[in-house]
Amino acid sequence: MGRVVIDVMPKPEILDPQGKAVVGALPRLGFDVFTSVRQGKRFELEVEGDVTPEVLAQARRAAETLLSNPVIEDVVSVREADTAEVQA
Amino acid sequence: MGRVVIDVMPKPEILDPQGKAVVGALPRLGFDVFTSVRQGKRFELEVEGDVTPEVLAQARRAAETLLSNPVIEDVVSVREADTAEVQA
Repeated sequence: MGRVVIDVMPKPEILDPQGKAVVGALPRLGFDVFTSVRQGKRFELEVEGDVTPEVLAQARRAAETLLSNPVIEDVVSVREADTAEVQA
Repeated sequence: MGRVVIDVMPKPEILDPQGKAVVGALPRLGFDVFTSVRQGKRFELEVEGDVTPEVLAQARRAAETLLSNPVIEDVVSVREADTAEVQA
């Protein structure tokens, strides 16, 4: 069983109210080293077999059409999940 | 300027309605290889200097207290952003 990870982030020039809320809350909780926060989305898509180039191509098309809004978001990454980043 | 990436995903045993909606929509759009989808969150936190072990420790504490709900979500990864996954 293979897994594809897709990362989607708001475009840099787009205001990110969720990120702004986080960066405002961090210092109140004692976290003082962070100057900026952006919040995006992460998808994990499972396939029956291996993650082939065809699977990755289909995942990229899905990322660009269904999983992101190209007006305000960028598809940052479409890749096979490495074992370190998969939940137990 | 350094950047930390934090990934948060719904726990495997928690129902993920956003992921369910995506997995239902994919075949209608012609994407037929995916059997399961989970949707989580990805945060990019910027710091002034380098990403030191202290910065990563603070990011992990922030991830576990502010950026995720430990009842329903797992912090999957807290790491320095590699250049390939950072927006231009």
